[in-house]
Amino acid sequence: MSEHRATKPLSLKSIQIQDKYWTPYIQLVRDTVIPYQWEALNDRVEDAERSQAIENFRIASGQSKGEFHGFIFQDSDVYKWVEAVGYSLISTPNPDLEKVADEAIALIASAQQEDGYINTYYTIKEPGKRLTNLAECHELYVIGHLIEGAVAYYIGTGKTSLLDVARKAADFVALHFGPEPHQLHGYDGHQEIELALVKLYEVTGEEKYLDLSFYMINERGQSPNFFHEEWPKRDRISHWTGQQESTPPDLAYWQAHKPVREQEIAVGHAVRAVYMYTAMADLAIRKADDELLAACKRLWSNIVNRQMYINGSIGSTHHGEAFTFDYDLPNETNYSETCASIGLIFFAQRMLQAEINSEYADIMERALYNTVTAGISSDGKHYFYVNPMEAWPKASEGNPGRRHVKTVRQKWYGCACCPPNVARLLSSLGEYIYTASTDTLYAHLFIGSDAQVELGGSRVTVNMKSSLPWQGQVELSIAELEGDGDFSIAFRVPSWSDSFTVHVADETIEPEIRDGYAYVQRTWKRGDVFLLDFAIQTRRIYAHPEVRANAGKVALQRGPLLYCLEEIDNSAPLSSLSLPADAEIRERSADWNPELVMLEAEGFRREDRGQEALYSSASPVKAPTRIVAVPYTLWGNRNPGEMLTWIRE
Amino acid sequence: MSEHRATKPLSLKSIQIQDKYWTPYIQLVRDTVIPYQWEALNDRVEDAERSQAIENFRIASGQSKGEFHGFIFQDSDVYKWVEAVGYSLISTPNPDLEKVADEAIALIASAQQEDGYINTYYTIKEPGKRLTNLAECHELYVIGHLIEGAVAYYIGTGKTSLLDVARKAADFVALHFGPEPHQLHGYDGHQEIELALVKLYEVTGEEKYLDLSFYMINERGQSPNFFHEEWPKRDRISHWTGQQESTPPDLAYWQAHKPVREQEIAVGHAVRAVYMYTAMADLAIRKADDELLAACKRLWSNIVNRQMYINGSIGSTHHGEAFTFDYDLPNETNYSETCASIGLIFFAQRMLQAEINSEYADIMERALYNTVTAGISSDGKHYFYVNPMEAWPKASEGNPGRRHVKTVRQKWYGCACCPPNVARLLSSLGEYIYTASTDTLYAHLFIGSDAQVELGGSRVTVNMKSSLPWQGQVELSIAELEGDGDFSIAFRVPSWSDSFTVHVADETIEPEIRDGYAYVQRTWKRGDVFLLDFAIQTRRIYAHPEVRANAGKVALQRGPLLYCLEEIDNSAPLSSLSLPADAEIRERSADWNPELVMLEAEGFRREDRGQEALYSSASPVKAPTRIVAVPYTLWGNRNPGEMLTWIRE
Repeated sequence: MSEHRATKPLSLKSIQIQDKYWTPYIQLVRDTVIPYQWEALNDRVEDAERSQAIENFRIASGQSKGEFHGFIFQDSDVYKWVEAVGYSLISTPNPDLEKVADEAIALIASAQQEDGYINTYYTIKEPGKRLTNLAECHELYVIGHLIEGAVAYYIGTGKTSLLDVARKAADFVALHFGPEPHQLHGYDGHQEIELALVKLYEVTGEEKYLDLSFYMINERGQSPNFFHEEWPKRDRISHWTGQQESTPPDLAYWQAHKPVREQEIAVGHAVRAVYMYTAMADLAIRKADDELLAACKRLWSNIVNRQMYINGSIGSTHHGEAFTFDYDLPNETNYSETCASIGLIFFAQRMLQAEINSEYADIMERALYNTVTAGISSDGKHYFYVNPMEAWPKASEGNPGRRHVKTVRQKWYGCACCPPNVARLLSSLGEYIYTASTDTLYAHLFIGSDAQVELGGSRVTVNMKSSLPWQGQVELSIAELEGDGDFSIAFRVPSWSDSFTVHVADETIEPEIRDGYAYVQRTWKRGDVFLLDFAIQTRRIYAHPEVRANAGKVALQRGPLLYCLEEIDNSAPLSSLSLPADAEIRERSADWNPELVMLEAEGFRREDRGQEALYSSASPVKAPTRIVAVPYTLWGNRNPGEMLTWIRE
Repeated sequence: MSEHRATKPLSLKSIQIQDKYWTPYIQLVRDTVIPYQWEALNDRVEDAERSQAIENFRIASGQSKGEFHGFIFQDSDVYKWVEAVGYSLISTPNPDLEKVADEAIALIASAQQEDGYINTYYTIKEPGKRLTNLAECHELYVIGHLIEGAVAYYIGTGKTSLLDVARKAADFVALHFGPEPHQLHGYDGHQEIELALVKLYEVTGEEKYLDLSFYMINERGQSPNFFHEEWPKRDRISHWTGQQESTPPDLAYWQAHKPVREQEIAVGHAVRAVYMYTAMADLAIRKADDELLAACKRLWSNIVNRQMYINGSIGSTHHGEAFTFDYDLPNETNYSETCASIGLIFFAQRMLQAEINSEYADIMERALYNTVTAGISSDGKHYFYVNPMEAWPKASEGNPGRRHVKTVRQKWYGCACCPPNVARLLSSLGEYIYTASTDTLYAHLFIGSDAQVELGGSRVTVNMKSSLPWQGQVELSIAELEGDGDFSIAFRVPSWSDSFTVHVADETIEPEIRDGYAYVQRTWKRGDVFLLDFAIQTRRIYAHPEVRANAGKVALQRGPLLYCLEEIDNSAPLSSLSLPADAEIRERSADWNPELVMLEAEGFRREDRGQEALYSSASPVKAPTRIVAVPYTLWGNRNPGEMLTWIRE
């Protein structure tokens, strides 16, 4: 099979991150998040919402007695944890952790049924109902996460124990789904297995897994619709309410309203959408399917030009955790799930493999630096599921339409998809820095690291040093070189930088820029140093005029970081503040972290003159005040309070 | 019993409205709304939501066969219709209409059970379950509307047929509710019967009805809580879902979270709240209960100073159609039910009877001129249930959190509380213009009319001519006088007027002003003419700085009318418009109605330069544009489109 592929990511084994900004996050995941989440999965965290994910496996395998507890997709939390462990072990071998994971894997394996099926909910609670409610019950989604976990653990340890479980489960799925009359012509309500099967294909080389994914992607949304046909067969009963439904399910929620190749607008549940688009891009590359790639491009463009928040988050409503429609980006009722931004990063990374265009990496960076890390507290033990653009603690308590917006990170969630998703992304961050073609290394993110790669017949180790996000200097050097050194290095010109300079071996060069990448082609020698200096300044950002929620408002961005106001620095109500269009925005370092760049400017605060009346004809009086902004991703790490991203200008 | 009463409204029989602005509304109700709603109740309006309210009575009385259809309080739509008819017949006898109403009343009577109980839902569907779910099932609410309808019809026609049904039903309630051990120590989840029983007391003179109302008001929110005790007795099953509930009901929704005398903040379902406060004020007056009155004043103050929209509407969320918390007044997701503003008018009118203070009448006027009439289309056949402060049709379609906001008035509603509520209010509008003490006539609203009243021993007919809301001239004259003419006339000084002049018999006088009322005391003679001239100008109104939703924004008000922008005059997106703080606001008359004052000003529109990017560092460019505003109450009567009340300044 010939691929249509522009570039390929480096293997995680070929990249070692050592970065002032990111290493602490990765250490946090390794030293705190992974052990903490293991405790949470075992229900040993005080006051946290109950998980029971591990106990469910014990019950399903007969090692323990009890009832299933949790969401129908509870197993996936364990699989995502194993995935994070797998990635972590690549860079940091840890025999104790590996032993814990091996035991978890043995437990998982013991819960697999003879025929390969594995799902503790159905095994414990409704053994006769397997595969009867694909629309709602996440059976293939959960197997998808099993596969991803197994692949990661195999790469990290070389052990096949979980990969064997995953293959057996995938074979079960392949047996039951497909075009044959005796098979289900269906797919899962929550996309995930599609992208997982591509990974399984990659590590096993078995095309049947790729073909199964392709079948599910192509079948989705065809008429007659699988979910509509399934509905009467399950007596129209909803898993979630136990009640009979009177109206047929909304296919758009599952992105099953039309064949995926015909979809033009991102609709429905945001995480499902981006997981699906990721698989579509994976398949478009591997099947050289330009029609499918065109659909990916349309959907990408719709998201980033019409439906994405400035922090790289998506999902304008908590109703169905979903997209709404073009330019509908309310700031205080948005969903902007952490997982959805992680999915958007997956999608971007796949698109970069299909074609080089800096927009993909820009958005990847935006989501990573702003939303993904906002999802986790600086202690690693508290998480945001929803990432609002503004927060008012009283409203989160007192207005039911804003109750989904938490203003303090939570210890755990009953539906705990986001915390392990953050863990697996951060522990596999190396996969997002570079991609490579046969003769060009593309640097998409500027994260300090060593990378080993073969380029134009040479074996090379590239060292990157980065002062991002606080400063714009990046140093790339050829640390090792075997071969003649004829290759190109292309780096992304970030959308947030107005200008940059490149010095290679003390000479200033003007690289050719194509599709947002600057190409430096030369015969490299070991020890060559390549200095990039991106102008980094605070920029005022404005939303498109169709975005009603942001009319008259400005957001502040410096480098890749979005900024916000917090009550602790500015006092409430933050809505009283306005930032004049000509106010100079100064930088200052934070008391608690001298590297951290805070922003400040002279603005105005509407005075509260203690009036009682709700409405008055007295003109508001404003007084000068200092406005202080901090990186959005760090909000809510000090005293709880209001937060505001879009400031009146 | 001695009352604590400042003033009393005039009987509807003593007042005849003839007003350029309001008579067309009253005629619309009489000639269009009442006949149209009768058709709707009989399911004879094409494409309207099904009512079946009349058919339910036929089925309940055995005259027809079939299933009950509609909400559990469907009967109340018929009673509210009868109430509107009763009021209408006072001013405009109409034998044909009376005949239709008499037949409806005979039908109603035939559905009453032997013991006085009446409710078609329970009679048809669950005869054994009467009075088992007071929290949710509205049985006393419906009887309350029966009583109100019966009282109105009795006043309008002198006929006691429906009053007999109502008394029998009230006696049934009195038998089952009260402090005795064999009685229910309870009350209804939807307050209404409490205020209705006061009306029944007024026309019958029977104190037992007043006492029953007082009992229910005093019992509400006591511990142990009636609704919490009722809950396990009904097996924790919700009427609305048919499911067992795991958490006990939220008492605040029903204002039953604490004894009413201890309540300080308006909470829960807004209509229920204001109906209850109305009854509390009724009882405070009649029982000379200063503690209860103090609670009313606190709750009033909380609403109007913390939780009321500028159009006099209440209910910040559609979740529970409820209040949220102080200063939480989102503009695009509010509920602001038409019925709740009607209830607020009831409450204001009762408070005016307890104490003279122009704030009550100001709010009454605000809700009447802006929300109540917004609730009905100019053709009388389409209604708003929800009155948003801004509307974006695409969002009402595409964002589930805004789906309750309709941007086009609907023909009818499955839950049709608002349309007949508007009809009964407008047809009893005369009750809100004046109140009187023994020697003073208080003019609260300026609506052209003749009123007969006894003041200081004189029988007098006062004629009012008004140019409101478009102009500020009001003429009061003594059309008839029997007696020595020693009395005062006090008129409200509206909060929207900066200054006014009074001429009595060609002499300029400076009346004494107390509590927002100007008092003119003299010995009046027949033919005396009393000219008021209120300065009427467009005012810019600003919200309290704690109202985050309105920061940096201005609303326009002229006289009692709030203004708004509509897409048809300004083109979308309305959020692109801004009105400079110093822009002159000019008046102009509408093409389609020369009396109607539109406003216009030179403002700015952010230009849409056709850019694709959602976020950009390019400063917005604004161009001068003319901004046109129309009275809020008339919005949505031309082409559907966006609407905006709070404009960026």
